[in-house]
Amino acid sequence: MAGSQAAASAKPAAVVSREVLERFATDVFERAGLTPEHAQIVAQVLVWANLRGVDTHGVARIPRYVELIEAGDMNARPAIKVSAETSASVLIDADRAPGPVAMTTATSAAMRKAAEAGIGMALVRGTTHTAALGYYTLAAAREGMAALAFSASWPNMAYHGARAAGVSTNPVSIAVPGGRAGPVLLDMATGIVSFGRLMQARRTGQALPEGSALDKEGNPTTDPRRAQIPLPMAGPKGSGLSLMIECLTSLVVSNPLISEYLEGTPVGRRHRQNALAIAIDLARYGDPAAFRREVDRLVRSIKALPRDPDTPEILIPGERGQRTFERRRREGIPLPRATFDELAGLASRLGIAMFG
Amino acid sequence: MAGSQAAASAKPAAVVSREVLERFATDVFERAGLTPEHAQIVAQVLVWANLRGVDTHGVARIPRYVELIEAGDMNARPAIKVSAETSASVLIDADRAPGPVAMTTATSAAMRKAAEAGIGMALVRGTTHTAALGYYTLAAAREGMAALAFSASWPNMAYHGARAAGVSTNPVSIAVPGGRAGPVLLDMATGIVSFGRLMQARRTGQALPEGSALDKEGNPTTDPRRAQIPLPMAGPKGSGLSLMIECLTSLVVSNPLISEYLEGTPVGRRHRQNALAIAIDLARYGDPAAFRREVDRLVRSIKALPRDPDTPEILIPGERGQRTFERRRREGIPLPRATFDELAGLASRLGIAMFG
Repeated sequence: MAGSQAAASAKPAAVVSREVLERFATDVFERAGLTPEHAQIVAQVLVWANLRGVDTHGVARIPRYVELIEAGDMNARPAIKVSAETSASVLIDADRAPGPVAMTTATSAAMRKAAEAGIGMALVRGTTHTAALGYYTLAAAREGMAALAFSASWPNMAYHGARAAGVSTNPVSIAVPGGRAGPVLLDMATGIVSFGRLMQARRTGQALPEGSALDKEGNPTTDPRRAQIPLPMAGPKGSGLSLMIECLTSLVVSNPLISEYLEGTPVGRRHRQNALAIAIDLARYGDPAAFRREVDRLVRSIKALPRDPDTPEILIPGERGQRTFERRRREGIPLPRATFDELAGLASRLGIAMFG
Repeated sequence: MAGSQAAASAKPAAVVSREVLERFATDVFERAGLTPEHAQIVAQVLVWANLRGVDTHGVARIPRYVELIEAGDMNARPAIKVSAETSASVLIDADRAPGPVAMTTATSAAMRKAAEAGIGMALVRGTTHTAALGYYTLAAAREGMAALAFSASWPNMAYHGARAAGVSTNPVSIAVPGGRAGPVLLDMATGIVSFGRLMQARRTGQALPEGSALDKEGNPTTDPRRAQIPLPMAGPKGSGLSLMIECLTSLVVSNPLISEYLEGTPVGRRHRQNALAIAIDLARYGDPAAFRREVDRLVRSIKALPRDPDTPEILIPGERGQRTFERRRREGIPLPRATFDELAGLASRLGIAMFG
């Protein structure tokens, strides 16, 4: 699912506690120019992805974020403002804010509106890499709301029937509160594999499953060094869903990403994202405690299904990530050599103490 | 995509105009006890699916609808009421209304709320077969709004890792207005194939693609006579999305379908559905005319991508359906022998004149 769970393959270069890694990431982003508060938000969101096992969306992204800040594509000191507002929604102009800053702002706004209007929506215009969407929907679920988020970025996934990137692996996340079993959290990209997974495969050299990607020339490949373009999940469904997400986010907020990129305009090649978060206040439509009990009951029913003998266990969306979270919170976050070295190089360049 | 496009294989038993087919369907539903107004809505929604080429969701469903009415599962004279309301949403208690009646009511309510609050949501509790969701989202798009709809029903699709039906092929539809190219309409089920497509394959004897279904015992099969349970699209993504739709619809409205069914409770085996429609008033967040132009521009960009030589044409969501719509509106709707005979049998039993 989203990103892909960490393959605990090679011996990690370091195993780092959440606190140490968050401290390090916060230091980096402060040095890169973010306010201490914003630096901490970005650090928390990235490290959360590592805790969940979604290493493709974790601290491995730090060097790229710093690059984006230095290139002026990610704004270290954004003037985030609400540029349109209704009783149930806001349109947030993110001013190229780091994605986690824009998205936590948006999620809070969607929840505030939902508390007033039953449903609340925050549209986000001109953010940057939104990181793991599950962080935001889960935050809403922990406050007792159901939440849904999409984000859109430039083309990196094949459109069904095309031999080139035409849409993005635009993620979708949906979360609902649960009872004893905790929230249920879906966080998936619209590609067969995420772009992060492709980058990870390139680093580790691990072969890709058949039918998951195209090379630069648009030919199917399983070679991780040649794979460039993920194919959409379920063919036209995946690329269709991704296209609709571009419409519901980018076109609604008048900040098209796909056409600008495909037409090769100057702005089209800049790193930009748009997003949407919706929160639903469950208490307006029923008894929230009953809802949580019903989620647990649903989970039990699914887990009691006859199991495919090829599958070790029937899993609920977010369950594996939650287990990894609990283990890594106790045992620390393993960092592969490549990630560790990149972070060490960055720390040295920025004059920051490296952990470990 | 949704349902699957009609395979124009065998010679049809009849080719019928939209008007004649709608008149016939309206007569049937009036005879079955619906008000003339409701009968016409159901007829229009079913015939629309045929016009679009989604024959699995068209008039072939009429006999089943009548059966549901006669069994008391579908209520010919529902007392639809709003049981909760906020400034941006309604919870509609559908009283087992025919799905198209509940869903057109819900879509109108979502649009009315969106006109006031920017975003509007209608939750639908206890409806029956919602038919082709694209009808409702397209209706909103034609009024200049973006729309999104989900519906939930009892388990008919395998949950990833299970050898039995555990979730439903719960459809998702998203539509946005367009310019010259018209609205873009995604209407897809979360299964690799829809349940309707499976039923159609059973009727026509056409083999199913590898990896699309399980037989009654939970074994993979391509035999249309043995295939009973569609597999989820993209494995855990499809069944995860479907599970979240059950949560966002059925559990939010306190009308669980999956657990009741899997636990084998008496109510669990009754035909029931729940749904959700969201409308977004584009004019609150930007210039609607610019939005339409940008949709057309996006469509042009996608269509200009280098084409996979194995694909005759790069298609936009809803494009094939729209072409079929235009052709069938001119040339009539072909009805396969099996459907025609079933309808003729029903007409004779109800004492209604058969067309053709």
